[in-house]
Amino acid sequence: MIKNFLLAKFSRNKKLYQHLYNIFGFYPDRISLYKIAITHNSYKHLTAKEPQKGNNERLEFLGDAVLGMVVAEKLYLKFPYQNEGFLTEMRSKIVGRNKLNMIGKKMGIHQLLKYDPKLKSNPVFLDAITGNAFESLIGAIYLDKGFVFTRKFIIEKIIEQHIDFSELLIQELSYKAKLVKWAQKEKKKVDFVLKNVEVENKRKIYEICITLDGEEIIFGRNHSKKIAEEVASEKFCLQMDI
Amino acid sequence: MIKNFLLAKFSRNKKLYQHLYNIFGFYPDRISLYKIAITHNSYKHLTAKEPQKGNNERLEFLGDAVLGMVVAEKLYLKFPYQNEGFLTEMRSKIVGRNKLNMIGKKMGIHQLLKYDPKLKSNPVFLDAITGNAFESLIGAIYLDKGFVFTRKFIIEKIIEQHIDFSELLIQELSYKAKLVKWAQKEKKKVDFVLKNVEVENKRKIYEICITLDGEEIIFGRNHSKKIAEEVASEKFCLQMDI
Repeated sequence: MIKNFLLAKFSRNKKLYQHLYNIFGFYPDRISLYKIAITHNSYKHLTAKEPQKGNNERLEFLGDAVLGMVVAEKLYLKFPYQNEGFLTEMRSKIVGRNKLNMIGKKMGIHQLLKYDPKLKSNPVFLDAITGNAFESLIGAIYLDKGFVFTRKFIIEKIIEQHIDFSELLIQELSYKAKLVKWAQKEKKKVDFVLKNVEVENKRKIYEICITLDGEEIIFGRNHSKKIAEEVASEKFCLQMDI
Repeated sequence: MIKNFLLAKFSRNKKLYQHLYNIFGFYPDRISLYKIAITHNSYKHLTAKEPQKGNNERLEFLGDAVLGMVVAEKLYLKFPYQNEGFLTEMRSKIVGRNKLNMIGKKMGIHQLLKYDPKLKSNPVFLDAITGNAFESLIGAIYLDKGFVFTRKFIIEKIIEQHIDFSELLIQELSYKAKLVKWAQKEKKKVDFVLKNVEVENKRKIYEICITLDGEEIIFGRNHSKKIAEEVASEKFCLQMDI
């Protein structure tokens, strides 16, 4: 702890040490992992001087698995009389894209991110990379501090502080269904329009736009068209408080 | 250890203790978890005398998450220069349904299972519940012995003994594509026919049959039609050594 405290005070990564401490409540041991975790893929084009030390996609893969597991255990223990279908659905609600983006933002992770500043004007992009970096940071914490520490961190700092189970229990999984129902009631014509398909790491990413009476309202992006629709619908429902 | 050894010798679960020891190489502490892990949902109809103590579906949910996480970490460390897409694909190959069914069978897990004997004549069913129980047992081990033990178990007894990475690297993910290609070459007409839809715990299960020139060859079952096709195709490719 003293060592980390000194590093935080005198290292050339002083600011990052302090920032991480403020967000997470502990000092990292291997700061390099956290540097990778906050670096989005788009950042590499900028770093001709400082050679690319890797982006956060591999750590996101790891962090996603760690988070999924800890949440699975928590739900298993918290709901001893619920079946597997219920547990699966609850987990989707907790580790779902929008939820992670939101928690990541609340924790201030978006302030740490390194990415191509040209993309700054795109709020959808910023939201998405916040959630991704959040998962990457969980991967970094796991490699840095081990399982017991990370499990405690996820339970105490993420689940207990940001997840309201009673709210999740009544929350419908399909925001699309909710939106469609709302649109019917409001007599608006809702459409889900495919606006763009990009290829990132050989995988397609779909961008879906929700239109109301032909007017473009809100976007959602994902590898799956269905989930992109769901992402856009969730944003809409949350913003409109439907 | 002595305690477990004695239990294994004198408890009324003597046989199960010994069987688990033979398969896994350790004695369980909380045998009740393992009893649940080997009990398929279909078994409950038989246990009017012995009240239902729960089936293995909840443990399967937990075990799937634990296995997925340990495999994710293993791949992350083993392939430091591969991107997230590669890691995701490799993991699918390792924790995919058919692979787990096969490893579970090799380890002898199918001999432990409790299920409705009426279903015994269905080899597809037996394969599937072996893989599921395998995941449930991982969940049981995690709750019984903790993370460090389970991680070591998965790495040493599952990955290192049953996973050939060089083989996985050249293995195509889509067996369906492989099968279709083969059928074209052999000038056979291949079809994927939906034979049956069951409902289990409010979720549909599709049974797909592969036909060659109209003749029924092999079946695959899953909650997703696509995966059921893939399951059937994988079996076909493995049996035909395509």
